[in-house]
Amino acid sequence: MIDKFKIINEMAVDNGSKIVLLLMDGLGGLQLEPGGKTELETARTPNMDALTARASLGLSEVVAPAFSAGSGPGHLALFGYDPLEYVIGRGVLEAMGIGFHLLPQDVAIRGNFCTIDANGKITDRRAGRIPTEECARRVEVLRKIKIPGVEIFVEPVKEYRFVLVLRGEGLGAAIPDNDPQLTGVPALPIVAEDAASEKTAEILRQWSVEANKLLAAYPPANSCLLRGISKDPGMPRFNDVYKLRSAAIAVYPMYKGVARLVGMDVIEHTAETPAEEFEVLKQHWNEYDFFFVHIKKTDSYGEDGKFENRVGVIESVDQALPILLELKPDVIVITGDHSTPAKLKRHSWHKVPVLLAADAARFGQAAKFGEASCTTGTLGPIRHVDIMPLALAHSMRLGKYGA
Amino acid sequence: MIDKFKIINEMAVDNGSKIVLLLMDGLGGLQLEPGGKTELETARTPNMDALTARASLGLSEVVAPAFSAGSGPGHLALFGYDPLEYVIGRGVLEAMGIGFHLLPQDVAIRGNFCTIDANGKITDRRAGRIPTEECARRVEVLRKIKIPGVEIFVEPVKEYRFVLVLRGEGLGAAIPDNDPQLTGVPALPIVAEDAASEKTAEILRQWSVEANKLLAAYPPANSCLLRGISKDPGMPRFNDVYKLRSAAIAVYPMYKGVARLVGMDVIEHTAETPAEEFEVLKQHWNEYDFFFVHIKKTDSYGEDGKFENRVGVIESVDQALPILLELKPDVIVITGDHSTPAKLKRHSWHKVPVLLAADAARFGQAAKFGEASCTTGTLGPIRHVDIMPLALAHSMRLGKYGA
Repeated sequence: MIDKFKIINEMAVDNGSKIVLLLMDGLGGLQLEPGGKTELETARTPNMDALTARASLGLSEVVAPAFSAGSGPGHLALFGYDPLEYVIGRGVLEAMGIGFHLLPQDVAIRGNFCTIDANGKITDRRAGRIPTEECARRVEVLRKIKIPGVEIFVEPVKEYRFVLVLRGEGLGAAIPDNDPQLTGVPALPIVAEDAASEKTAEILRQWSVEANKLLAAYPPANSCLLRGISKDPGMPRFNDVYKLRSAAIAVYPMYKGVARLVGMDVIEHTAETPAEEFEVLKQHWNEYDFFFVHIKKTDSYGEDGKFENRVGVIESVDQALPILLELKPDVIVITGDHSTPAKLKRHSWHKVPVLLAADAARFGQAAKFGEASCTTGTLGPIRHVDIMPLALAHSMRLGKYGA
Repeated sequence: MIDKFKIINEMAVDNGSKIVLLLMDGLGGLQLEPGGKTELETARTPNMDALTARASLGLSEVVAPAFSAGSGPGHLALFGYDPLEYVIGRGVLEAMGIGFHLLPQDVAIRGNFCTIDANGKITDRRAGRIPTEECARRVEVLRKIKIPGVEIFVEPVKEYRFVLVLRGEGLGAAIPDNDPQLTGVPALPIVAEDAASEKTAEILRQWSVEANKLLAAYPPANSCLLRGISKDPGMPRFNDVYKLRSAAIAVYPMYKGVARLVGMDVIEHTAETPAEEFEVLKQHWNEYDFFFVHIKKTDSYGEDGKFENRVGVIESVDQALPILLELKPDVIVITGDHSTPAKLKRHSWHKVPVLLAADAARFGQAAKFGEASCTTGTLGPIRHVDIMPLALAHSMRLGKYGA
């Protein structure tokens, strides 16, 4: 198979130019009615609209037609990693989501508290969706479990969910979930699928026995199921591949986690609003070549079906945009990791608008930045995995392919 | 892997129709300012514009998004060979570039004269960029080297560059460059990477020893480095795959070389201007089904940053176009092998406009031929490797796929 990263790495040069990737989570939207406008089209975005005059617009496919990307795949694609090729396990994703600093050798597991009866049969796979504080109490209990030869971390997530991490040498992760996805049956046995994962399986079996003993006193969450047993897939490092010094600015742990997974520096800060995030970027402007800035609320309001609030977040980003523009990045890309139309209250498969502003862009007509203008833009239909290479090309960081 | 050539070959029929592929090198351009026009959009091209009424327009990706194609990959793609799959080594490209007639078994090497000190350490990897005449003098000296069992050719290129070709039986080319890409160190040892290349490596070691002896008297170019050791990759033959009798008309050796590599006839001529090239085509009209006509200057002026001169070349092509149109080709394709915007003074990654005129085309609105009209054309976004199959289809040379 053709190793695209190798080719791009060979073409890449570090010329000191600056790139900003401004991601509004779930940016792509839908009209509520025929003849209507999407969230982005409804928003008053004079700064972005002005940018279109010296930009290329396009619509981008995140993973593949009809695929509604999760946050992990959406971000990986945006960073140039084909999410059909680079699959992050649920355990790793969950650990990243709470900001747990995973090491390459760690095995991460998503745990679900559940209810079992006297015969060990599952009666509720989510333990009545216990509140998060109840989850935290039980996590405290589970932390008492010690197994020689391995360091064990247990962290609460939300409601019935927690994260279990095993740290040690020689721990494989080829172990299926022990969640039978059914009630009325016991948890499945924990069985390694390869020799390299035998040690992990044995540790998890011991741990589960201990966990059941300890949790017996805490119904309804008197047992737990282990899912998504996985490790950092060991992806090519973002900075090495692209020859960039890169930094991520995000408010939510999940997005810091994905950025960290590909090797970006994650800037710690207390910013919350877009303007505050941009100010953080400004403070660190001279330290990096590439900034990934993550805006969360466009997605959250989409999930909640709040069209007007999504419009408001987009407008607040636009209002703060001059803070970025004053820094005169060589390339600024504004896009999303997937669509989250308020109309659907969920991630969707619709293509995502992209604005790529650069001196080297093939300029289109100045336009309102939105799905309609992006459909006929000069960037054309593209894929998310091409956005990073295109950003590099437009900052003159990619040489020729072949002589 | 799907063998696209095999499928196309099975669908192809020879119906005697005629196709002209008119290539303006580096045709794709950029506006100098927002709201401006590209070179092609600026040029007065009444003949091409008239053609758009009975044509499909499209924008084409040469290799992959963000890839700025070199001449080799750009032409291969245009001839239907995926340049990510068919990689032509630097030595072969360089030999083709000076019009050297490579045989399939030949090993071609790009040589760089360099300067070494008394300890054999490289002090200048380009020997002070000696002028081309100095290069030719040393090439004469190197031609004295004879090694039993192999025929050796040495040809000057430009400044410090020359081409070395080994002709004989059993010569593999899996040998890395001996150029360390550094000064202060000696050349790397010449080592075969497979058994089939052992003989070649031994010959090159002997040759290098002799070369250093002879060049000692010719500082600053008192040694040389060997790079891009390669052979004709042995591509499927253009004429066989497409069932065409094909001919290339080009002024520069490089483009004749690429055409020859895929098996086209190369028509020798003394034409220089577009009109003269078209007259050559006219003289040979009855001998071939397919003509590849190469116009160089659109690229050269792009590299030099001369926007107006690029416009002028495009206009001269348009003025001469009636010579071609009078021949009534069934299909005429006008495009480029990549973009070379005067604004960037280099090959670029921007998609290339394509005009495909044929009775069987899905006609769009008549328009000024240019990047903007191609963005919304009926041919849609395509890839360069699809242009040859599309030309065949539009000349009714491709049957059905499946019953």
